[in-house]
Amino acid sequence: MEIIRKKRDGGTLSPEEISFFVQGYNRDEIPDYQAAAWLMAVYFRGMEAAETAALTLAMADSGEKADLAAAAEKTVDKHSTGGVGDKTTLVLLPLVAAAGVRTAKLSGRGLGHTGGTVDKLSCIPGFRTELGSGEFLAQVRDLGVAVTGQSPKLAPADGKLYALRDVTATVDCIPLIASSIMSKKIASGARNIVLDVKTGSGAFMRQRESALALAETMVAIGRDLGRRTVALITAMDQPLGRAVGNHLEVIEAIETLRGRGPADLVELCLRLGAEMMLLAGLARSGEEACARLAEKLKSGEALDMMRRWIFRQGGDARVVDEPELLGTPPFRAELTSPAAGWLARLDALTVGQASVLLGAGRAKKGEEVDLLAGILLLKKTGDRVRKGEVLAEIFCSDGARIAPALEMLAGAYGFAPEAPAAMPLLLDRIDWLSLRS
Amino acid sequence: MEIIRKKRDGGTLSPEEISFFVQGYNRDEIPDYQAAAWLMAVYFRGMEAAETAALTLAMADSGEKADLAAAAEKTVDKHSTGGVGDKTTLVLLPLVAAAGVRTAKLSGRGLGHTGGTVDKLSCIPGFRTELGSGEFLAQVRDLGVAVTGQSPKLAPADGKLYALRDVTATVDCIPLIASSIMSKKIASGARNIVLDVKTGSGAFMRQRESALALAETMVAIGRDLGRRTVALITAMDQPLGRAVGNHLEVIEAIETLRGRGPADLVELCLRLGAEMMLLAGLARSGEEACARLAEKLKSGEALDMMRRWIFRQGGDARVVDEPELLGTPPFRAELTSPAAGWLARLDALTVGQASVLLGAGRAKKGEEVDLLAGILLLKKTGDRVRKGEVLAEIFCSDGARIAPALEMLAGAYGFAPEAPAAMPLLLDRIDWLSLRS
Repeated sequence: MEIIRKKRDGGTLSPEEISFFVQGYNRDEIPDYQAAAWLMAVYFRGMEAAETAALTLAMADSGEKADLAAAAEKTVDKHSTGGVGDKTTLVLLPLVAAAGVRTAKLSGRGLGHTGGTVDKLSCIPGFRTELGSGEFLAQVRDLGVAVTGQSPKLAPADGKLYALRDVTATVDCIPLIASSIMSKKIASGARNIVLDVKTGSGAFMRQRESALALAETMVAIGRDLGRRTVALITAMDQPLGRAVGNHLEVIEAIETLRGRGPADLVELCLRLGAEMMLLAGLARSGEEACARLAEKLKSGEALDMMRRWIFRQGGDARVVDEPELLGTPPFRAELTSPAAGWLARLDALTVGQASVLLGAGRAKKGEEVDLLAGILLLKKTGDRVRKGEVLAEIFCSDGARIAPALEMLAGAYGFAPEAPAAMPLLLDRIDWLSLRS
Repeated sequence: MEIIRKKRDGGTLSPEEISFFVQGYNRDEIPDYQAAAWLMAVYFRGMEAAETAALTLAMADSGEKADLAAAAEKTVDKHSTGGVGDKTTLVLLPLVAAAGVRTAKLSGRGLGHTGGTVDKLSCIPGFRTELGSGEFLAQVRDLGVAVTGQSPKLAPADGKLYALRDVTATVDCIPLIASSIMSKKIASGARNIVLDVKTGSGAFMRQRESALALAETMVAIGRDLGRRTVALITAMDQPLGRAVGNHLEVIEAIETLRGRGPADLVELCLRLGAEMMLLAGLARSGEEACARLAEKLKSGEALDMMRRWIFRQGGDARVVDEPELLGTPPFRAELTSPAAGWLARLDALTVGQASVLLGAGRAKKGEEVDLLAGILLLKKTGDRVRKGEVLAEIFCSDGARIAPALEMLAGAYGFAPEAPAAMPLLLDRIDWLSLRS
C-alpha cells in the first residue's frame, strides 16, 4: 500500500522497497490487483535511473541465475527489440564467432509479426533448440556460438509482471520495458551487452524519441549494474532485408553469410558485430572491426561457422548449400505493381501483418507458426518499378490465406514520380560511458 | 483492456463503456487487477462530468433499488461526508419531520473517528436499526422519519470497487468518491438530496478547494441524473458541538432538540434543515424555513418527534428525559489547561484520534465500538481559559485507555494571548441550478 501510494504521489522508491515489492509479488504475497495499481502508477510517474536499475536487479534475482560471462572469455550478449524481417541473430552470431567473439544466446519464441530466433532455427531439420545448461556452456566455450530456448526459471518475476502488464494496459512504459529486457540479461550473467533498438512502423517503438529514451534507459541500467552496454538505434520503417517469414529468413541469413546478403542487413550485421568486437577487446576501432568482419564474410569463414554451429546443435548442415532441404512452400503467389515510378514507401508493419495472415507469425501467444509461410520483397524503398512488375512473392501452406494476405500486402506500398531520399539505417548510438545522466 | 487504455491515454469513456466495465466487474467477469489498473488511470486522468454520472448510474444499477421518493411525498435525502462529533442526523431528521419533511435514511456503520449514525442509535435500549423494507417505507409515510442499516445489496458494485480502492491507494480521488456516495442515493430513489461536505482537519477533505470540488462533482452528478441536489461546505477544523463519542452524542442531540444545543450544531441543523424544507416545497425562503425550524425546537415539537421516532423503532423513549438510561461510563478523567489565555485551536483530527484511543471509534473495519466511550469538550475555540481549568472530560469502559487518550487529546489544543478571530461554520453553498459546468 505504502509503496503504491509513494509511487502514485511521484516519490522515489528505495532499492529495498522495490525489492520488497518484486519479491512479494513473485511469491504471491502481493496480489495482482495491488501490482496492477502500482504498474499504472509507474506508467504515469515513471521511474528514476536508480529505481529502474533496482527493479531490473530485483527481477534478475527472482529465479535461477547463470554466469555465462564467467564460463567463457570474450562473451558478448546481443539483443534486438525486434522488427519485421529481423534475422540479424542468425547472421551475426556465426559471423562474430568466426572473429573470436563468443555468444551464448537465450532466446524466447517470438510474439508478433514473425517468429523469434528459436522459431527460425527450428526450420532446420534436426536442430535442437533446447540445450542442457552443461552442453550449452561447453558449446559456448568450444565453438563460440550457442542458442537455446530461454528457461522460464530465468527472472520469473519479469515473466509474471509482464503477463500482468499485458492485460492492464501497462506494457507501453519505457522503464518497465527496459527493466524487463535487461533483467534477463543480468540474470544470465552477461557482462557485455549490445542492444539493437529499432524504431519505425515495424518496431515496438514507433517514434524515434521513444526508441532513444528506451535505449538510454537500458544503457543506464547496464552501467548502474556494472555491465558494459552499447545501444544502436536503427530504422525499421521497411522490413530488414528481402525475406519475411521463418524459412525464407534462414535462407537469406545463409546467403548473407555467403557474402550475398542485402545491403541493409549486411550493414546492420557489420555495425552490431563491430560493437561486439570492441566490447570483446578484439579490435581497436570500429573501422578495423568492420573490415575484419567483412573479410570473414568474403573468406567463407563465417559461413563455415554456420555449418559447424548447425552440426553442433544436431541440425542438418547441408541446408547451408541445399536450401531446398528446409522445405518447399506448397503455395506461391505474386504481387504486381499497380503503377510505374519509384517505390517511396514499403510499410514494415503492414508487411508484418500480411505475413501473420499467411501464418508466418503469431496473432496470439502459443499459436502454431507455419514455418514455410513468408514474403519475399523483390523491390524495396528507392527501387524503380514498372507497372505490372512483380513487387513481392508470397508463400504459404494454406491456399485460403493467399487472397487476404495479398490484399493486406498491397496496402504496404507507396509510389512516387521521383526517387525518394535515401533513408539511413543507423540513426543513433549510445554507450555506457557517454551516457548523459 | 481498451477501456483501461482509453482512460490511461486521457480519453473520455462513453456511458456504454463505463456500464460495461462496472457490470463486468460486478459480475466477476473483469478481474480485480484490470479494475485496479483502471482505477489508478482514473486517479491520474480524472473523469468528466458525463463519465462520473455514468459511473454513478452504473453502480446504482448494479443491485437492488428502492424508490423512496415515490413511496412518500416531500421526501428529502441528507448525507454528510462525516466529521468529528457529527451527530447532525440525529437532530436534523426529527426536526425537519416535525416541519413536514420526510426522511428515509439508509445508513452505514461508521469507519473512522467515531461511530456512524447506526452506532449512535444503537446506544438507545431496544432501538432496532434493521428494518424490513415494508415497515421502513410505512414508517416514512406515517411518521416522516426512519433510519435503517444500509443493505449490502444496494449498489454492490460500489461496495466491491470501494474495497479494491481501499487496498490500491485509489480512495483519494474526487470523481470516485463522488460517484460512490451518489450511487447509493440514486439506488435508493432519492429525488431531493442535501449534502453536507465538510472540510478541515477532522474531515476527509482537508482542503477547502478539494471539498468544493467534491461538492460540485456530486451536485453535477445529481443534476445530470435528474435529482435536485444542494451541497453546503461546512467547517470541520474543530469538532461539531461539545460531545464526541456515541452515547455522549445522543445526549447532545437530545439536548439540541430540547432547544439547548451548542451554537454550531444548532446553526448547522437549521441551515441544512432549511435546504431540506426548500427542496420539499415547504418554505419560500431560507429565512422563513430557518424561523419555522427554530420554532419547532422552541415548541418542543422536534423533541416530541424524537420520542415518537425512538418509540416507533422499538427503542425506550424515556431516554429523551432520562439520559442515564443510555448507560454510565465506568471511567471518567479530566484534561486541565496547562496555560491561561484564549483557546485558539482545538484540532478535530486529534480529538477524533483520542476518541478512537478511548474505544469510541473504529481503527479497522469490523471492530467493536465502546458506545459509552467519548470526550466532552467543555471549552472550544474562542473560549477564554484559566490555567488548571477543565478543558475536557473523557469517558470510557477500560481504564487502561485513559492515559494514552489524555496524552493524545492534550495535543489538540493551542492557546493564544488574545481572542482569535471567529471562524464561520458555513463556507459555501452549491446547488444544481447555479452550478457552473
